[in-house]
Amino acid sequence: MTREAIQPFIRNAWYIAAWSEELDDGLLARTIMNEPIVLYRDADGTPGGLEDRCCHRGAPLTHGTIVEAGLECGYHGLTFDTKGNCVRIPGQKNIPPQARVRSYPVVERDQILWIWMGDPARADETLIIDYPYHDQPGEWPHRKAMFPIKANYMLMIDNLMDLTHLGYVHRQTIGGNPGQHVAADMDTRQTDHGAYFIRWMLDHDPPPTYRKGGKFEGKVDRWQEFEYVGPSIVLQWSGALDVGRGAQEDRNKTGFHLRLLHGATPETETSFHYFWSTANGYRQDDPQATQEMYDEIYPTFIEDKEIMEAQQARVNLDPERALVGIHADSALSLARLSLAKLIEEDRNMMAVAAE
Amino acid sequence: MTREAIQPFIRNAWYIAAWSEELDDGLLARTIMNEPIVLYRDADGTPGGLEDRCCHRGAPLTHGTIVEAGLECGYHGLTFDTKGNCVRIPGQKNIPPQARVRSYPVVERDQILWIWMGDPARADETLIIDYPYHDQPGEWPHRKAMFPIKANYMLMIDNLMDLTHLGYVHRQTIGGNPGQHVAADMDTRQTDHGAYFIRWMLDHDPPPTYRKGGKFEGKVDRWQEFEYVGPSIVLQWSGALDVGRGAQEDRNKTGFHLRLLHGATPETETSFHYFWSTANGYRQDDPQATQEMYDEIYPTFIEDKEIMEAQQARVNLDPERALVGIHADSALSLARLSLAKLIEEDRNMMAVAAE
Amino acid sequence: MTREAIQPFIRNAWYIAAWSEELDDGLLARTIMNEPIVLYRDADGTPGGLEDRCCHRGAPLTHGTIVEAGLECGYHGLTFDTKGNCVRIPGQKNIPPQARVRSYPVVERDQILWIWMGDPARADETLIIDYPYHDQPGEWPHRKAMFPIKANYMLMIDNLMDLTHLGYVHRQTIGGNPGQHVAADMDTRQTDHGAYFIRWMLDHDPPPTYRKGGKFEGKVDRWQEFEYVGPSIVLQWSGALDVGRGAQEDRNKTGFHLRLLHGATPETETSFHYFWSTANGYRQDDPQATQEMYDEIYPTFIEDKEIMEAQQARVNLDPERALVGIHADSALSLARLSLAKLIEEDRNMMAVAAE
Repeated sequence: MTREAIQPFIRNAWYIAAWSEELDDGLLARTIMNEPIVLYRDADGTPGGLEDRCCHRGAPLTHGTIVEAGLECGYHGLTFDTKGNCVRIPGQKNIPPQARVRSYPVVERDQILWIWMGDPARADETLIIDYPYHDQPGEWPHRKAMFPIKANYMLMIDNLMDLTHLGYVHRQTIGGNPGQHVAADMDTRQTDHGAYFIRWMLDHDPPPTYRKGGKFEGKVDRWQEFEYVGPSIVLQWSGALDVGRGAQEDRNKTGFHLRLLHGATPETETSFHYFWSTANGYRQDDPQATQEMYDEIYPTFIEDKEIMEAQQARVNLDPERALVGIHADSALSLARLSLAKLIEEDRNMMAVAAE
Repeated sequence: MTREAIQPFIRNAWYIAAWSEELDDGLLARTIMNEPIVLYRDADGTPGGLEDRCCHRGAPLTHGTIVEAGLECGYHGLTFDTKGNCVRIPGQKNIPPQARVRSYPVVERDQILWIWMGDPARADETLIIDYPYHDQPGEWPHRKAMFPIKANYMLMIDNLMDLTHLGYVHRQTIGGNPGQHVAADMDTRQTDHGAYFIRWMLDHDPPPTYRKGGKFEGKVDRWQEFEYVGPSIVLQWSGALDVGRGAQEDRNKTGFHLRLLHGATPETETSFHYFWSTANGYRQDDPQATQEMYDEIYPTFIEDKEIMEAQQARVNLDPERALVGIHADSALSLARLSLAKLIEEDRNMMAVAAE
Repeated sequence: MTREAIQPFIRNAWYIAAWSEELDDGLLARTIMNEPIVLYRDADGTPGGLEDRCCHRGAPLTHGTIVEAGLECGYHGLTFDTKGNCVRIPGQKNIPPQARVRSYPVVERDQILWIWMGDPARADETLIIDYPYHDQPGEWPHRKAMFPIKANYMLMIDNLMDLTHLGYVHRQTIGGNPGQHVAADMDTRQTDHGAYFIRWMLDHDPPPTYRKGGKFEGKVDRWQEFEYVGPSIVLQWSGALDVGRGAQEDRNKTGFHLRLLHGATPETETSFHYFWSTANGYRQDDPQATQEMYDEIYPTFIEDKEIMEAQQARVNLDPERALVGIHADSALSLARLSLAKLIEEDRNMMAVAAE
């Protein structure tokens, strides 16, 4: 099995542009698919995403100021609304039609700013993934983070879709016994929008975090469920219930539960913004537990960042070079198959848009 | 109005290579138009400019030493005079004719080292701009500085020729009310070598620095005069006189006066050396006033550096992309027109030199 | 005399990959001729050199671990022996034939790890230079170092083959009088594998280090012998004997002796690893003398690094540009002639290997 390590961008899709909380301090500069974007809230709180370049002399709008009329450039004062229209030019009444900047559809939902990088006419909000847990602090208290990673965004999807890396990359942290991870019982399948797997470790000794979090006294049935929703999201639900409680039939019972949202938003062909949030579904009334969960996961994901960046550095030396597939790649391969389909669809949409 | 943001070099012109005081410590390495140059004073004090590369093994001559015979290479001791001729090769009597380095015409005047980057036969010293104020410490005590700026040098000229930026870029420092700057009365015209404007703010409340410097008690007539002398110099004379003293007929009277020299010498296509000097023409016998003037201007020009570098970073993403002109660009546009003429003339001279 | 400053790689030759002591701490990542290599010792101590890129997902093997079966990748656990064969894939029995990484012949001898970058079938160990002094701590106590240098490796050979630089580059350290170095009596000749010279300074006042090291009371006959063994090694023997002891007939007598091994291993076209070892052949039973010798040479070689990096920076601006030869280049020119022959031979060998 051979494939290119560096995948082209898929424009007609929703990506995480920022966590809502990142706009608390004002303007935010973020490059997505090589395009510099200014993310901000208008005077009335509406989020916007504009090309981060004034049409007058090219200055970045992130050097500007939010005023009543919109976003005012910090060089000579041209002002733009969230649609990218220039609404004010100091010293003149007439505003020429070419005085505008590109705007991007931006939707705020579930404490996430979603951005659409393709044809605005196709920016269908119903395509946005629901992630209600962010707004359920009683059931799913959570913490969020963003890591800049110097790798093609698909290396993150690969990483998440092949958990055999846990025993090697995370040997010193959450890894545990490599053999156990390799031997887990896997149910893997293609989905409409990506790929899915669930791994079961039945009649299993709970690791310390699990034991403490779920107040287990004996053995557990443990699962790791991952769903790739192409092109850039992975939804994770990991947990365990006491043996005999019928976990495989219905997991929605008190026990040990973790929910993670992973978003890999391309910055360039060889870098991405890794957004992740982690929710505590086991000791919800204990803020210390949420913090401990975060503090445990953070260094683990730094290990992933390090290995992916090292991997990308090698890939960069010869991006066309073949990789060698192994059995553990099965879910990863389904994700890549799904991606290939999305790339093809996107190419067709872009061709239509260009006509 | 569309134009390229990155302008080609004009070689047949005098540029500021350094302030005289920069050679006090010996050899100075400076890249101009992508050419590494060593600036130095010979044993008798004569300034020279040579290609900063020994013809023997390519070592930079800035690693060398000034000796009686000239500039001695720090690797194997070849020695060159200010014309670039090799005058000594250790271990041999005969000096082959190809043993020479390129020399550049350099002229020291008004505490400025001017360099000619084009055909040496055209290096006419009468073309050098006079700037007598540097040598008039009694009337114009001054301070000099040089900032390296990562932008095409013409972004500096643009900046100086459109003062509406004061209210935005320098909002926290000297900016004041943006509307006032936009509304000032402008007299703008093309000149033989560039463009000129004077802005008058008549019957105007003097800002604090002006009030203190000019000992004004009431309103003033205030002006900002800028002359672009292509390709790389802007001469500035700002000031104010008491209303009723006939400032518009004759400004040469005691009041508040500032003279600035601005030189933007291209280092590469996307970087330049910004030389500026500022002279105190209001409290000449008070060295503290000269220092305070400098301390006020310095952070303001750092703000310009920041916005220009941010602007260039955007321009670099697509240098051919059109900019959108506005009314406030009128003086800037005349400067750019003049530049286009200089580029054309220079192209013709270079073609002749290449024949 | 004109030649290119940046020489092509010669692959069919032995190069110093590392000092043996560099593997004491485990895996070592080193790029040679643009190829990332992991150097390591197997569980039984055998040194190996593999391409530093796992064939599975491209992760660097330097992130891995030495296990009984070989070098285990730190991402998903594939394991390779020193021949580059994959011997284990977690989760599967069958190992596909394409699961392998490139291996390089590596030989450990005289505390040096030698690597062969060309056709493995030609990796004849008898071509490796003998350097027995490293294993003679009683007669030649020594110290080793490695400097990364940003220059084509041949600039190092040039440097060593033209000692007239001593009076200029090392003016503040070991240089002494430039005229004396230029006037030394030289015997220079081509050899089968490179070039050789010996410089004699007869009836000569010994410099302080020599006087102290050799316990001289009067004048000495002093020599500097350098042999270039292409493409990357220079052997140095410097020293002095009392006048009248017949140094020119037989130098193997008690006096002042220094032996240096210089290896310049290409990292890229414009950078190399500079390996050097220096042996004390005058106060062998005094560890302090060995340390002092090292402490004196170290900053001197840093001066060489600085001038070579500055030289390369200039060469990079126009690599094809001609250099101007001088008389002092005679040994350097023989070395470059020899190199040209090696390049030609290597090109022929590579053409055969590609057939």
